[in-house]
Amino acid sequence: MSAVPASPLAAPAPPAAAATAPAVPTPLMGEALAERFTDVRAFTETLVEPLSPEDCVVQPMPDASPAKWHLAHTTWFFEAFLLKPYLSKYPIFHPKFGFLFNSYYNALGPRHARAARGMLTRPSLEEVCDYRAHVDRHMAELLAQNESAETARLIEVGLHHEQQHQELLLTDIKYTLWRNPLRPAYRDGTSNDEQVEREAPASFDIPHSSFTQFSEGLYEVGRDTGAFCYDNEQPRHRVWRDAFELADRPVTSGEWAAFIEDGGYRRPELWLSAGWAAVQREGWEAPLYWERQKGGGWRTFTLSGMAPVEPAEPVCHVNYYEADAFARWAGLSEPGLRLPTEQEWEIAADASGYDPAAGDTADGGRLHPIAPAPGPGLRGLAGGVWEWTASPYIAYPGYAPPAGALGEYNGKFMCDQWVLRGGSCATSATHLRSTYRNFFPADARWQFSGLRLAR
Amino acid sequence: MSAVPASPLAAPAPPAAAATAPAVPTPLMGEALAERFTDVRAFTETLVEPLSPEDCVVQPMPDASPAKWHLAHTTWFFEAFLLKPYLSKYPIFHPKFGFLFNSYYNALGPRHARAARGMLTRPSLEEVCDYRAHVDRHMAELLAQNESAETARLIEVGLHHEQQHQELLLTDIKYTLWRNPLRPAYRDGTSNDEQVEREAPASFDIPHSSFTQFSEGLYEVGRDTGAFCYDNEQPRHRVWRDAFELADRPVTSGEWAAFIEDGGYRRPELWLSAGWAAVQREGWEAPLYWERQKGGGWRTFTLSGMAPVEPAEPVCHVNYYEADAFARWAGLSEPGLRLPTEQEWEIAADASGYDPAAGDTADGGRLHPIAPAPGPGLRGLAGGVWEWTASPYIAYPGYAPPAGALGEYNGKFMCDQWVLRGGSCATSATHLRSTYRNFFPADARWQFSGLRLAR
Amino acid sequence: MSAVPASPLAAPAPPAAAATAPAVPTPLMGEALAERFTDVRAFTETLVEPLSPEDCVVQPMPDASPAKWHLAHTTWFFEAFLLKPYLSKYPIFHPKFGFLFNSYYNALGPRHARAARGMLTRPSLEEVCDYRAHVDRHMAELLAQNESAETARLIEVGLHHEQQHQELLLTDIKYTLWRNPLRPAYRDGTSNDEQVEREAPASFDIPHSSFTQFSEGLYEVGRDTGAFCYDNEQPRHRVWRDAFELADRPVTSGEWAAFIEDGGYRRPELWLSAGWAAVQREGWEAPLYWERQKGGGWRTFTLSGMAPVEPAEPVCHVNYYEADAFARWAGLSEPGLRLPTEQEWEIAADASGYDPAAGDTADGGRLHPIAPAPGPGLRGLAGGVWEWTASPYIAYPGYAPPAGALGEYNGKFMCDQWVLRGGSCATSATHLRSTYRNFFPADARWQFSGLRLAR
Amino acid sequence: MSAVPASPLAAPAPPAAAATAPAVPTPLMGEALAERFTDVRAFTETLVEPLSPEDCVVQPMPDASPAKWHLAHTTWFFEAFLLKPYLSKYPIFHPKFGFLFNSYYNALGPRHARAARGMLTRPSLEEVCDYRAHVDRHMAELLAQNESAETARLIEVGLHHEQQHQELLLTDIKYTLWRNPLRPAYRDGTSNDEQVEREAPASFDIPHSSFTQFSEGLYEVGRDTGAFCYDNEQPRHRVWRDAFELADRPVTSGEWAAFIEDGGYRRPELWLSAGWAAVQREGWEAPLYWERQKGGGWRTFTLSGMAPVEPAEPVCHVNYYEADAFARWAGLSEPGLRLPTEQEWEIAADASGYDPAAGDTADGGRLHPIAPAPGPGLRGLAGGVWEWTASPYIAYPGYAPPAGALGEYNGKFMCDQWVLRGGSCATSATHLRSTYRNFFPADARWQFSGLRLAR
Repeated sequence: MSAVPASPLAAPAPPAAAATAPAVPTPLMGEALAERFTDVRAFTETLVEPLSPEDCVVQPMPDASPAKWHLAHTTWFFEAFLLKPYLSKYPIFHPKFGFLFNSYYNALGPRHARAARGMLTRPSLEEVCDYRAHVDRHMAELLAQNESAETARLIEVGLHHEQQHQELLLTDIKYTLWRNPLRPAYRDGTSNDEQVEREAPASFDIPHSSFTQFSEGLYEVGRDTGAFCYDNEQPRHRVWRDAFELADRPVTSGEWAAFIEDGGYRRPELWLSAGWAAVQREGWEAPLYWERQKGGGWRTFTLSGMAPVEPAEPVCHVNYYEADAFARWAGLSEPGLRLPTEQEWEIAADASGYDPAAGDTADGGRLHPIAPAPGPGLRGLAGGVWEWTASPYIAYPGYAPPAGALGEYNGKFMCDQWVLRGGSCATSATHLRSTYRNFFPADARWQFSGLRLAR
Repeated sequence: MSAVPASPLAAPAPPAAAATAPAVPTPLMGEALAERFTDVRAFTETLVEPLSPEDCVVQPMPDASPAKWHLAHTTWFFEAFLLKPYLSKYPIFHPKFGFLFNSYYNALGPRHARAARGMLTRPSLEEVCDYRAHVDRHMAELLAQNESAETARLIEVGLHHEQQHQELLLTDIKYTLWRNPLRPAYRDGTSNDEQVEREAPASFDIPHSSFTQFSEGLYEVGRDTGAFCYDNEQPRHRVWRDAFELADRPVTSGEWAAFIEDGGYRRPELWLSAGWAAVQREGWEAPLYWERQKGGGWRTFTLSGMAPVEPAEPVCHVNYYEADAFARWAGLSEPGLRLPTEQEWEIAADASGYDPAAGDTADGGRLHPIAPAPGPGLRGLAGGVWEWTASPYIAYPGYAPPAGALGEYNGKFMCDQWVLRGGSCATSATHLRSTYRNFFPADARWQFSGLRLAR
Repeated sequence: MSAVPASPLAAPAPPAAAATAPAVPTPLMGEALAERFTDVRAFTETLVEPLSPEDCVVQPMPDASPAKWHLAHTTWFFEAFLLKPYLSKYPIFHPKFGFLFNSYYNALGPRHARAARGMLTRPSLEEVCDYRAHVDRHMAELLAQNESAETARLIEVGLHHEQQHQELLLTDIKYTLWRNPLRPAYRDGTSNDEQVEREAPASFDIPHSSFTQFSEGLYEVGRDTGAFCYDNEQPRHRVWRDAFELADRPVTSGEWAAFIEDGGYRRPELWLSAGWAAVQREGWEAPLYWERQKGGGWRTFTLSGMAPVEPAEPVCHVNYYEADAFARWAGLSEPGLRLPTEQEWEIAADASGYDPAAGDTADGGRLHPIAPAPGPGLRGLAGGVWEWTASPYIAYPGYAPPAGALGEYNGKFMCDQWVLRGGSCATSATHLRSTYRNFFPADARWQFSGLRLAR
Repeated sequence: MSAVPASPLAAPAPPAAAATAPAVPTPLMGEALAERFTDVRAFTETLVEPLSPEDCVVQPMPDASPAKWHLAHTTWFFEAFLLKPYLSKYPIFHPKFGFLFNSYYNALGPRHARAARGMLTRPSLEEVCDYRAHVDRHMAELLAQNESAETARLIEVGLHHEQQHQELLLTDIKYTLWRNPLRPAYRDGTSNDEQVEREAPASFDIPHSSFTQFSEGLYEVGRDTGAFCYDNEQPRHRVWRDAFELADRPVTSGEWAAFIEDGGYRRPELWLSAGWAAVQREGWEAPLYWERQKGGGWRTFTLSGMAPVEPAEPVCHVNYYEADAFARWAGLSEPGLRLPTEQEWEIAADASGYDPAAGDTADGGRLHPIAPAPGPGLRGLAGGVWEWTASPYIAYPGYAPPAGALGEYNGKFMCDQWVLRGGSCATSATHLRSTYRNFFPADARWQFSGLRLAR
């Protein structure tokens, strides 16, 4: 058992000013911003290099989007939020692209139906690349001008937005390729770009997870550092937590296989009511992408094609229902085991010096669902799998969405979704922070999502 | 502005023992229990007196149940949880009723499909009444025996369970009658039972709601008094709350009409994303049961038939999406207005001496959706409408469902539902307490549900 | 092999006058009509005697209707088509019943949604019986007046319409009772009315069906006798038929069991494409209502409850897909076997002296799905099961629906339905004739439908 | 009024031998076959020249298929039915293509789900073209061998099969492009291939259609010439027809506009019951692809993009429900107007010297929905639009599907579809004959389908 590293506030704490007026983050500006702009935009294009035009047009389910749509939508974001309002005489690339590539911003007018994104054979991939080049050229112009903090902040939002879509592009293309009975690989090992190629998966060297202890107390959670964050991470505010412990590593595929063998998917008492209904309706028997081999054991679909399930890697592609059922099952043999709340997760991550850039989310790890490198203490908090928490995605006390269309970015989804924390092998390290709140509905399996236990 | 009546804990508080071992409530026993058994069971039958056998068999939508099913299911509860295990030589009334009238307890075996409850023309209403009499007779036998605290506790659960179904019986029959173009009334004013007849609706005498203030601090919420409560109200535990204010009365129908006139149902910026999708899909333009009159103004369907919407009454039959949109709309003119959290609601109710039995939920009020009688301070906390809170329905820290089938009572629904607090005109006063957590999905409109603002 | 009994026309036949101006049937009038009115109306009420009010309100699927609805709709027919236009000062029973009980006549205004008929707990069964009495009283008045041929014809339509609904009432209540896991019986053997009680089922004494031959030639089909028929049986017109043979009896349950054992429901090559898709989607493995017994053999749900499948009885409750697949399967061992066309069926029936009243559709047989009494030649043409033909339900050459709302009776359904001929154990003998065209969609199984082979 | 050109049989006719043993068509062989093979296969590739890889992968609705799938499926047909059984040592191109590109032949094993054809981003268009080349090379080998009549017949089936898919490829890509809000054109006027470019549309010079008369009598219909036909056109058999008249030209867009203006889509009395339900459910107000212009008039989507509706062209993209409603509407002013039966159509076409190759279906016309050139007598029987008939698609008397997998080609679809006759602007002239039976469900609008009136 580890020591108690987290320091609760000395209580009663003074009112947190942040609760009424969240700190406005200081944006990147100048060269640093321009450089980051170039890097992020280029990486999106790197990601589609292994894909054919046909791969990029298909939408495999309503919740996923075609790669081409991700390429265009992230570009439209800069056109709509930066170039049109801030670059004088900006020539709109195409009058209908606003309609086609707006995702969900009601304030920016009507838009193409989400479930019909896969119908857009035109514009072609080539035209979309031209669109990107056009917008990038004009963004360079805007960046070269005497920029304001306001535009800098918007650009930074746009870049984080694009990084979110980079991960979605990968989860969506993985799902697309998997729906093809040929099970084609996204990567074929011939790319010159290290980011795209698969690394040898690291694995955990400890058979059983140990737990790190945190004492009860009044803590602060949420972001207030002056650096970039989304609106939903604010205001920083106080929460009371009873003492808790967090597992040193995520649940592994080997542990999940034991859950399956013990009837995990056939025992209603382990499941939430809605989860059990989904199990029966969908016929789930294992995580998404797992296939039972004839001679025993499991294989799984990866971005490199079909591969054996590695017992020491974090389990991936499970949804909230499954994560919750696993925790209940684990609690049968060791009472008190459960999923952590998002506050517990954040308190623990902050106490552990969570640092996605330094550690186990090296670039090479960005693109494959592997476990982070082994190490002491809380490991794998970033870069392996997103970790489901027991927290519904709701507003922090005092939360107010920003005015205008960007107010639709996060706030309007605060209903019937669950928070995931950490970051996955498909998340860029520069996109992450300990206060980051990812969220998906309880039945979503196609994200790189796993879990970590608490008690 | 009222004074600050609530007392937060002196912090840091000592660890609440309840958090690890919730108090086991001391049940009613002996005569008191037997009397309560008779009262509660009889009231269910009173409720169906105005109904024909045909009224009692129909299921108007999958989420609602036929009145006959409520009559039988509540009876089956006593048979399954009390008579079979505890009364020796108890003669099962019918070998298939367990299959027909189990609601959702997987631990008690397979059961009839929920959405097909309306197919059960047999057993007849008369046979179901015989079933009730049979079970009541044997329960009397069991009650007369030297009862244990264990059976007493189970009986109390069964009675609260039946009181929940009394309210559902009313919400479901209201929906059933409304689906009939003839719009028949549940009550016709000829009953001798005062509980069934409609009272003159009380109304709020204050045009604008005022707010009661509560200071920041560490509070305890949850039940730990030794009296009955459900498992989901435990353990009592500490929470930190920043200062807040709660409106002295619920939102009224008159205020809701203003929301409608101001385009409330046509402005996407007021709605959660899923809520707006539902508005468009379902064509909602007003609360359930409201109909716009040709000459202007609104009428609504009540248990007494069609009636004018009374502006001073609490608005009723709105769902979480609507409540949330209304709060956002109200916040446009008075920033900071929002729905309260369930913790805020409970803190305020406890501070206000919430007492459903003494006040505005007199029996006569039980059966009609009216406002409670006017009075000073926080009014209408019980007996008018259930109040949506901004809190998803999740487990309290340290929550563990009881062992056995009763563990399925509450815990397995802790996903994608929202907490309502207070109690409605259709809730029995003896069923309520300030810690009571009612819950429904965000789109449910057929309950007696309204809202109260906080800031 | 039987002799060739049917006489084709001497060709070339003279143009049939009927083709351009169908004979207007001479209606029953006076006493005879009044007596028939009383008989038919009374029999409907006899049919509901075994039912409780609850049985009568439920709608088990969109295509079926509640018994109460049948009672009211057949009554509304007389009110809408006879009393309102022809009886001066007729007092409408209830202003909304036209809306509630119009089935599908667009010309008579809007109406209650078909799939929501089961929501109508009010009017009660008792009120509907009052409605029937009210209409019957006024119909007696109308019948006592100096009636015209026009009203007489309309009354006759109304009576045949009611006889159709008598059969539907039985098929629908059978389906309703079957959806109840208790599997209650419609009849319990205590009725004094012979029509309602079950007879001992007759069976066929010949293990293999023989065939009756018909020679090629130009025949006339369709009704032109001056007696009552529906518009869709007219005009009588000429058709050319190559020589054909028709089986002497319907396919039996024993033969169907052999089809099942031979993989009939698992071999796609036997099925129409849409049929095979339905088999897989619905999981059909036997006729509707059949249940495989643990020790082997089959039981089936009847109006008298669960009963063994009798191998010598005609198979019943199969749909067109199944009938077609069976014929294809039979053709594997005896090439050329197929379903007859409706013209072949009619030619054969006319040649055989088809007489539903004289023979095997005695009243007692009306209400149970049994085989007709044995005998020589073509047997069981009426009174056992409706027989699917290979003929889609379309207009006869020169067909024109009557003017006004009654033009909607038959014509607007001439699309994607298949003709059944003969009449079933649930059809009144006085309702049948050899030209009668019953029709249902290819997937309908809840009617008393079987088949007979041709070649 | 024209003279009576058709000659019924002198009756009573001798039994047509065809009825029991249909003539086996004499196939093309040798050079002629090889040349036709080359032509047909090349034309498919010509058709996809204007398309991008992205255009070729998308499936716009379950009933349509991606262009790439058409390319591969028609190729698979030769591989499965010719190369594998008849070319020794034929090297299968890819082991999984059989699974991917089998359409519906159960006898040839399991296959990819129809509705998921649009998920196949791989194989790429390029790989599919390689597949075509591979199969063509080996087919050349097979054709060069001493071929049998059996293989020649199969090849001819394969080529007609491919010609069917050529038309489907066009109807499907038209629908795909239309689902894109950009409304891109299939043709842009720059192709060197005359077949692909749009011709100036011919139009009818007569404002009102006249009718050609046919006398009553016993006719023969169906194919028995020794040349190629599908199994469903056989056996040739006798039918009796009363005298009838057929309109000299199809219904035009101008006439359809009048139908719309007269409330055609808003009057339930004009529609089949299922048709009216579809109108209300789908919101149909005009033919598929028509858009009302703001200033009045109509525009329509064509393979060349949006274009004005030409009043003198045949109306196109209406389904059976619409065709039937139009005929009923036309019958209001001129009683007796109706759709012809398929037998009437064939009798008239044979009497008129129907010749798709000689006349108005020149190659250039193949690819645009225009009217055929004007002329005397029955015009536009081929090459403009497919014409809905009043005939459900069922087996001819004595029909038996061929043994083996090809028996699934036509027979298993003989249920709830309607016959269209003639051929459209998208049908190759060499694919047509007067006995050709095209068929689609009553609600299908995306084919080049119109109508012609009879009386």
